[in-house]
Amino acid sequence: MIAVPAFVADYQVSIDAELRRLVPDSGATVQRAMAYTLLAPSKRVRPVLTLLSAEICGGRRAPALAASAAIELVHAASLILDDLPSMDDAPLRRGRPANHKEFGEAVAILAAFALLNLAFGTVAKAYDPAVASKMSAVLSDAVGTEGLVGGQAGDLLAAGQPIEFEMLERIHRGKTGSLFVAAAVAGGLVGGGHADAIASLSAYAKNLGLAFQIIDDLLDVEGDPAQTGKAVRADARRTTFVSFSGVEGARQLAAELCETADRALRPFGRRADQLRELSAFVAGRSI
Amino acid sequence: MIAVPAFVADYQVSIDAELRRLVPDSGATVQRAMAYTLLAPSKRVRPVLTLLSAEICGGRRAPALAASAAIELVHAASLILDDLPSMDDAPLRRGRPANHKEFGEAVAILAAFALLNLAFGTVAKAYDPAVASKMSAVLSDAVGTEGLVGGQAGDLLAAGQPIEFEMLERIHRGKTGSLFVAAAVAGGLVGGGHADAIASLSAYAKNLGLAFQIIDDLLDVEGDPAQTGKAVRADARRTTFVSFSGVEGARQLAAELCETADRALRPFGRRADQLRELSAFVAGRSI
Repeated sequence: MIAVPAFVADYQVSIDAELRRLVPDSGATVQRAMAYTLLAPSKRVRPVLTLLSAEICGGRRAPALAASAAIELVHAASLILDDLPSMDDAPLRRGRPANHKEFGEAVAILAAFALLNLAFGTVAKAYDPAVASKMSAVLSDAVGTEGLVGGQAGDLLAAGQPIEFEMLERIHRGKTGSLFVAAAVAGGLVGGGHADAIASLSAYAKNLGLAFQIIDDLLDVEGDPAQTGKAVRADARRTTFVSFSGVEGARQLAAELCETADRALRPFGRRADQLRELSAFVAGRSI
Repeated sequence: MIAVPAFVADYQVSIDAELRRLVPDSGATVQRAMAYTLLAPSKRVRPVLTLLSAEICGGRRAPALAASAAIELVHAASLILDDLPSMDDAPLRRGRPANHKEFGEAVAILAAFALLNLAFGTVAKAYDPAVASKMSAVLSDAVGTEGLVGGQAGDLLAAGQPIEFEMLERIHRGKTGSLFVAAAVAGGLVGGGHADAIASLSAYAKNLGLAFQIIDDLLDVEGDPAQTGKAVRADARRTTFVSFSGVEGARQLAAELCETADRALRPFGRRADQLRELSAFVAGRSI
């Protein structure tokens, strides 16, 4: 595993501060459960993508922080749900016991529900109505039956049976790709980007997200739990890109997707160098 | 149990049509699970409150339907979660097996998550940004740790131990009152109501919601499952208004709350007669 690009650390600090402001690790049980997963150490790849997307469109970092936090709130909610006994039944997440192991299933489910809810509330309160309304629609489309929820349901229903490559790609575009796309588009919206700039960012994010998922599959086979924060081979019962293409084939596919992602950045020229570093990091994560 | 007021039937037809449009009972498993609870027979008290609130502020019914549907989407999501094995472990809802009994826990949880998500998406897409953004914030506050989620968590954590009357009231204001208030305020917003009109509707809804919850406690003790669609004494392990005040005391309290609700309607004069019929229905539900 290679380190995140140096410039990312500074963004992570801003994002973590915004998340702590939105969900302090104190107070009622549900709020502590929300903070437990949300504030656990994380690379923050999705919210960093939001901030970089805002900046490349000419926006500043500070106003984009709420949008980046909304994306991470949704992501944390999806992690809590994915780990539940009725779903992946995963004991570890971000190097700690999974949320339901720490707080019990009922509180974990309510925490996930509240995190999703807070994402929409954050967007509604942080931005002028025109931006807030568009961003809320983008977020809802990314989470719904054609996005995160559809991907997770497809994944669960496909478990233990053979599936086609196209179906696997569709599941992963829903589970991972849709929120990467929403992260980039949300940044583009708050940064005041034109439609064509946002379309380029969306194409970049779509391919980056799928590459990210493939690398996750690789880490699941080869990774060190101390590095990934998850149990190895937690997904062994699943058909993954690795079981389709083998370790080398999957690594090659991820590299190709990152190249495709980078091609979408051409209109931005050198201004997209940090996004290129991000995709180079994603492509290299398994090395 | 007395019948819903005659005028309500017509509103229910409009609401049901809007809900079926938003979530057809077809397609992928998660969508069918969403429709299963959402489209089950229901009095639709909350969305009717939204439509009446819009009309009393001078709005028409048709533009308020999306707001009323958003409220019912959130309500259906909360019903699915409440019934889960880790929460109330309820076998029946709206006269049918609970969602997780029919679709399994994982799909039920994803369906609840998708219903909440769709509520925000519906609001963002149906209204002009100024209304959509305010309504989204109202909805998020009603669902969050100070609303539905906080109430449900408080209820779960209080189960099996003695609690104060004030805590019980706080739990029920979260579990039931907050969404009643959001229903009225959402209607007021889409109807173009002034702040004082919306405040009156909010006061009405707050008291009506608490009365509604108390009557639910009474029905749980006295009700006929064929009428309530739920198992009797499902909440026996809980402290309720009935266990605090007895059957007669709880009935009296509900009646008083409905009178308080009606007093908030005075500024509207005769224009609020249908809202008065609604509170008379709620107060009389246990007769």
